[in-house]
Amino acid sequence: MNQYNILLDGAKMPDAWYNVAADLPTPVPPPLHPGTHQPLGPDDLAALFPMNLIEQEMSQERHISIPGEIMDAYRLWRPTPLRRAYRLEKALDTPAKIYYKNESVSPSGSHKLNTAVAQAYYNQVSGVEALSTETGAGQWGTALSIACSMFGMKCSVYMVKVSFEQKPYRRTLMQTYGADVTPSPSDTTNAGRAFLEKYPDSTGSLGMAISEAVEVAATSGGKIKYSLGSVLNHVLLHQTIIGEEAKMQMESVGAYPDVVIGCCGGGSNFAGIAFPYMQDKLTQGKDIDVVAVEPTACPTLTRGVYAYDFGDTGELTPLLIQYTLGHNFVPPAIHAGGLRYHGVASLVAHLVKSGDVRAEAYHQNPVFEAGLTFAQAEGIVPAPESCHAIKAAIDAALACRESGEGKTILFNLSGHGHFDMSSYAAYFSGGLTDYDLEQKIIEQAVAEVPKV
Amino acid sequence: MNQYNILLDGAKMPDAWYNVAADLPTPVPPPLHPGTHQPLGPDDLAALFPMNLIEQEMSQERHISIPGEIMDAYRLWRPTPLRRAYRLEKALDTPAKIYYKNESVSPSGSHKLNTAVAQAYYNQVSGVEALSTETGAGQWGTALSIACSMFGMKCSVYMVKVSFEQKPYRRTLMQTYGADVTPSPSDTTNAGRAFLEKYPDSTGSLGMAISEAVEVAATSGGKIKYSLGSVLNHVLLHQTIIGEEAKMQMESVGAYPDVVIGCCGGGSNFAGIAFPYMQDKLTQGKDIDVVAVEPTACPTLTRGVYAYDFGDTGELTPLLIQYTLGHNFVPPAIHAGGLRYHGVASLVAHLVKSGDVRAEAYHQNPVFEAGLTFAQAEGIVPAPESCHAIKAAIDAALACRESGEGKTILFNLSGHGHFDMSSYAAYFSGGLTDYDLEQKIIEQAVAEVPKV
Repeated sequence: MNQYNILLDGAKMPDAWYNVAADLPTPVPPPLHPGTHQPLGPDDLAALFPMNLIEQEMSQERHISIPGEIMDAYRLWRPTPLRRAYRLEKALDTPAKIYYKNESVSPSGSHKLNTAVAQAYYNQVSGVEALSTETGAGQWGTALSIACSMFGMKCSVYMVKVSFEQKPYRRTLMQTYGADVTPSPSDTTNAGRAFLEKYPDSTGSLGMAISEAVEVAATSGGKIKYSLGSVLNHVLLHQTIIGEEAKMQMESVGAYPDVVIGCCGGGSNFAGIAFPYMQDKLTQGKDIDVVAVEPTACPTLTRGVYAYDFGDTGELTPLLIQYTLGHNFVPPAIHAGGLRYHGVASLVAHLVKSGDVRAEAYHQNPVFEAGLTFAQAEGIVPAPESCHAIKAAIDAALACRESGEGKTILFNLSGHGHFDMSSYAAYFSGGLTDYDLEQKIIEQAVAEVPKV
Repeated sequence: MNQYNILLDGAKMPDAWYNVAADLPTPVPPPLHPGTHQPLGPDDLAALFPMNLIEQEMSQERHISIPGEIMDAYRLWRPTPLRRAYRLEKALDTPAKIYYKNESVSPSGSHKLNTAVAQAYYNQVSGVEALSTETGAGQWGTALSIACSMFGMKCSVYMVKVSFEQKPYRRTLMQTYGADVTPSPSDTTNAGRAFLEKYPDSTGSLGMAISEAVEVAATSGGKIKYSLGSVLNHVLLHQTIIGEEAKMQMESVGAYPDVVIGCCGGGSNFAGIAFPYMQDKLTQGKDIDVVAVEPTACPTLTRGVYAYDFGDTGELTPLLIQYTLGHNFVPPAIHAGGLRYHGVASLVAHLVKSGDVRAEAYHQNPVFEAGLTFAQAEGIVPAPESCHAIKAAIDAALACRESGEGKTILFNLSGHGHFDMSSYAAYFSGGLTDYDLEQKIIEQAVAEVPKV
């Protein structure tokens, strides 16, 4: 009997992550060294990551066992509920069956904690004493702060200065878990000082915060490593606990999805819910409509190019194959901060390129409207990012109402919106803009993708 | 198979609330009419509450079945997890076993939703179209907003003006669920207008907000009823789902508590966890230390008098037997807003008076310190109110470390602190005051208790 999360009849959990790389018909083109353009070896990453995570990053194993210590940490909030959205179905008057996986119940309020505890664990057993990272809106920084607190490690978070000042509650939340939170650019790194000298009034950017966090790790002599919350293979791998668990839960009630939906920024929560079902689609030919949802204001998958590009504006990271709007692209200030990324994970890009995953883009006003419909029916206020998945699920359910089909729809509720109420207030007051990007702007941004 | 909250092996839930009134050795002195001082009859309450809730308020039945519609609503988040706090035990190096019931996973973020959905249901089936209520910090207003949205009713919340302005996110959260939120005092009621005329710059009080919400119901011709989030018998009754569920869950792992702890303001979350165990203590003579924890700054149970008193400053409510600091007592501005109440539920007072429940009081700095210890061990940031229960649980566990006893400790985590981060920030900056009330101040406040 699992005594961490007593659910009367016990609570089974998957004990392995799923690695979609093992089932791809064609391999993903490898990451390239930013200087030489040659494929990266493990040693090229050793300054930033411990070797056990580098091995996962490059692994072709289909399943990777979850260590007991991580299972114990997962049991603080996992298994997360899989819910049938009966009230939402009724509100939409649809014959569709809507299910959602509720990742908002994690202590950090989002799916991000699934990889944060794994990364903290693998670093701790490698003798690493502290992790450095960057955060924009704060979901990732919160998750890594909790994970480090669980494994007795220090955590340094470089938070984009404008968010540090506008979201004091997120900052306080991270401090509650014992993290050091520094507004970026800061005077604590060479990169930060150089930036402050050039632009003394800078409000920061995610690219600059990445540079600071990377510098802290790279110059620490191995005591501090760097941690990233999305995009990389091992990050997506850890998130597959979501979909593996959903499959067990759906099976326990005799259900199987016709449609699987996740919102998509860097790609981690989308991969989490979708990849375990991709296995069935790729290896058994299951007919599933797998949908990645992005904002129209940052249309990486729907209007970007498939190419090698940098992960950051500072051109410090390896070159990864991806859909990209160009690494200097700055999306409009939409409220789904977690979806404002110029690129996407290689694994997700590869599956969109092959046609196995379909991408859709939505404007933010209808996205918030969908979020409200969901909140009033199901009680949970969703994060703006998650509202994108909800919008796609509602549209699929309404299409069923038109066609009379009783499809089974599954989406991932990646997080709650408790720290996004200012965005809802802006929506209520009519203050949200739906941005249509001119083709010229996209072409200019994409022109800066490096020629490889 | 319950498909609302699929937990792999199903999820049993209690199907009845427990009414401690059935097992008291002596009956609780009845509520009195504020004018005549005669015991109240059902008709005296009919302007404010529907008859089905009035019957529950006066019931002596031991168990009251939970209607299917309320069970369906509960299944949106219930059963809530019962967790063994292994990490906290390890951090405290204690032989004690610590369990907590996690009510923070409800969509409203606290236990308040347990009675909100019940009250909304009973009103809806009575033909009531809307509910009015007051809220201070916002936990109760949030819960009733969700409940009304679930049952297709309108909800009017009078929010103390200073909180309305200081806690815009709480206000937005209620609006997300479709509630009307009005800062009190307002120009929408006679009571509010009179107050504004007398004190144009008033920042409001809970007493005034109650008067406005009551007036809206009383003058609606039966279309609108009033709803209260604590103190009354039927409110405490609905909260016993917490303790009934905990008993089933503890039993499933062969555990039984030596100590049961809840924080105590009006008394609803304390009653929720404690009353089902009080049944064992009262009818089977079980040796359980049942502890109600309050703030030193509002020491109702530890320094108040046992007497009949009003529930509000406006002297509009019936007279209830209780421990009270006097209905005009205004506690210092501590951060646990939900525990700043001059009185307490009659049922709780009766059990403290009889010695079956023990009361403890704590200062807010050690209470926040306990909350931090819990957050860093278990991952969840607790509400300031809940931190009081955590402090008592930690003290009990540390006493076990001294004595070597392996006691089993159970406490109720009544809510999360996602909307209380400004309080944590104040604690971090050293800005919290530990208030010791002079005996003279208590005596002056208590002198205003009416002579009955």
